[in-house]
Amino acid sequence: MDRRSILKKGLTATAAVGAAALSAPALSQGRQEWRMVTTWPKNFPGLGVGAENLAKRITTMSGGRLSVKVFSAGELVPPLQALDAVINGSAEMSHGAAYYWQNKNVGLSFFTGVPYGMTSREHAAWVRFLGGQQIWDEIYDQFGVQGFLSGDTGTQAGGWFRKEIKTVADLKGLRFRTPGLGGQVWAKLGASVTNLAAGEIFQALQAGTLDAAEFVGPYNDLALGFYQIAKNYYMPSFIEPGLATEAVVSKSKFRALPADLQEIVRSACQAEYDNVASDMYANDPRALQTLVDKHGVKVLRFSDEILKAGAEASAEVLAGVRSSDNALAKKTAESFVAALTLLRTRADITDSPYLVAREKFFKFK
Amino acid sequence: MDRRSILKKGLTATAAVGAAALSAPALSQGRQEWRMVTTWPKNFPGLGVGAENLAKRITTMSGGRLSVKVFSAGELVPPLQALDAVINGSAEMSHGAAYYWQNKNVGLSFFTGVPYGMTSREHAAWVRFLGGQQIWDEIYDQFGVQGFLSGDTGTQAGGWFRKEIKTVADLKGLRFRTPGLGGQVWAKLGASVTNLAAGEIFQALQAGTLDAAEFVGPYNDLALGFYQIAKNYYMPSFIEPGLATEAVVSKSKFRALPADLQEIVRSACQAEYDNVASDMYANDPRALQTLVDKHGVKVLRFSDEILKAGAEASAEVLAGVRSSDNALAKKTAESFVAALTLLRTRADITDSPYLVAREKFFKFK
Repeated sequence: MDRRSILKKGLTATAAVGAAALSAPALSQGRQEWRMVTTWPKNFPGLGVGAENLAKRITTMSGGRLSVKVFSAGELVPPLQALDAVINGSAEMSHGAAYYWQNKNVGLSFFTGVPYGMTSREHAAWVRFLGGQQIWDEIYDQFGVQGFLSGDTGTQAGGWFRKEIKTVADLKGLRFRTPGLGGQVWAKLGASVTNLAAGEIFQALQAGTLDAAEFVGPYNDLALGFYQIAKNYYMPSFIEPGLATEAVVSKSKFRALPADLQEIVRSACQAEYDNVASDMYANDPRALQTLVDKHGVKVLRFSDEILKAGAEASAEVLAGVRSSDNALAKKTAESFVAALTLLRTRADITDSPYLVAREKFFKFK
Repeated sequence: MDRRSILKKGLTATAAVGAAALSAPALSQGRQEWRMVTTWPKNFPGLGVGAENLAKRITTMSGGRLSVKVFSAGELVPPLQALDAVINGSAEMSHGAAYYWQNKNVGLSFFTGVPYGMTSREHAAWVRFLGGQQIWDEIYDQFGVQGFLSGDTGTQAGGWFRKEIKTVADLKGLRFRTPGLGGQVWAKLGASVTNLAAGEIFQALQAGTLDAAEFVGPYNDLALGFYQIAKNYYMPSFIEPGLATEAVVSKSKFRALPADLQEIVRSACQAEYDNVASDMYANDPRALQTLVDKHGVKVLRFSDEILKAGAEASAEVLAGVRSSDNALAKKTAESFVAALTLLRTRADITDSPYLVAREKFFKFK
């Protein structure tokens, strides 16, 4: 395209663009700013930092044509209104976890993680290669939004307990903070389950209105100070074997982007997904060291009796979704079960035996 | 900036660009094409497809300002000259595995994976958050290139064996194909180790000049047809608990890019890293099903005797690098050991116990 035809297209002061270096749709688009509302407090380790990094990646890769401004929980809307803000147009993008919106459709839980379900690698394999994304799109289509994986904590810690727990009988009436489907599992095990926001857990433990609480893992839990009250830290979480975060975009705003910016948003989410997972893997064990060495935390393993009862309760909760009247939730659960049935063979044959052998036999010389 | 000042900057037919939408360096840069030479045959599942996808991501995200053209093994240079092609300027980018270049510096092996070493999540945590990338940069600086992680196979399969192997004594003189540090481990176990290129393995098995061979995992191995000759498929690989691929760029060409294109290359590598890992996790178990159901393959587990001897041999090989005269290799190994010492606590306390519990207790209802 030569200079004359560019001028004919009509350069304006607000959309001044050259054709050689930029595709046509961007030409009419110019620069824009998106608001990303998040469910995370400011500087929240791993997950919240992932939202900040995602915004930076998009802004940098687009050379500022699409700059993303991040709002922490409460800055623009309360944390649990982040998705609604995108739906009603007061933000273009949100960052949080799909299971926060399970009251819109319980199928959304599966895009975060479910009890005794997938590890992070399995979950990404399902979403990206075994049909998960398509069903997720189908659910979010109803709300005019689209979701992308944007991070994962990996297998979490089981929780903080004032007293040691050894048997299922010890869980009877235990006042335990844990949300979502995992909460349903613990309720089946006899616990008295409540869901409190992150900022309220410490105080409830201190006041004695909670006997136990689970949140994420060492990296996040250290920051919230639970170790000051409850010294028994149980591993592993069987209700959150992986927890994926999401980035959600307004579908109409996303579709209006030129192809290069669409791919920038998509790839930025996927790159940052990996970055958050790496961050958690690097920093969880560092935080655990601090918890043990400086704060006298006792790291304990759930007994087989509890792990087994948890497996049965989890299977019941999952069966509940599979037999529900909600067609999309049912479809999600069936896809998840088919994928996990396939994927767990790899874990059982390869990944798990390797980790067991390394723990048992490998020492540095 | 208004229309007049844009015109004052001097639009030309070849570099017609508006200042508002594009940063200055790109203005002088215009469009360019990079050649990416790879070590993979055309359409090689997982890893080779990852190279193709990476090129597409960069081309699409840059709106064609940086388009990347992929050359399979042998198309422009032979596979094992891919890195040299970037060093000598006949390509701008390569895609392969760092351990192919261990004759340049044995420290490079660590950026692919080492016997009884890190899983893929641990490896990415080391490279991205625990100092690995900085040492990698230091090694590649000497050659004027820069490496980025671009994919990972996850824990591989142990290999194809004509006869069942149960004890270390069964390995005595076994003619086994396996490359790199893993080859050194198997040699210590008594095997007669050779390294053949992918395309030569099948024929050597068929001709009887090999008793056994390991390559990648079900997804790649199925394509090469080893099951036709050797029916015993042993799991897991203890010499390749993860295998990362790399994308390498010419440092001078990379630094000459404007900030947006640099970030596009970086984020494209990280996004595609995740994509390859997801692809392998989804497709390995599908391929394994085919191998078992259609081709009568017997999936077996290495005995504890072999896993234990393998661990001791691996520790010796690693100790060899740590005590070598090569300062950078030594530095790499020390960083790796420190990181793995930290990271394995997470695997031992959380990830592995979860996988074991799920296998033992969790059944769908």
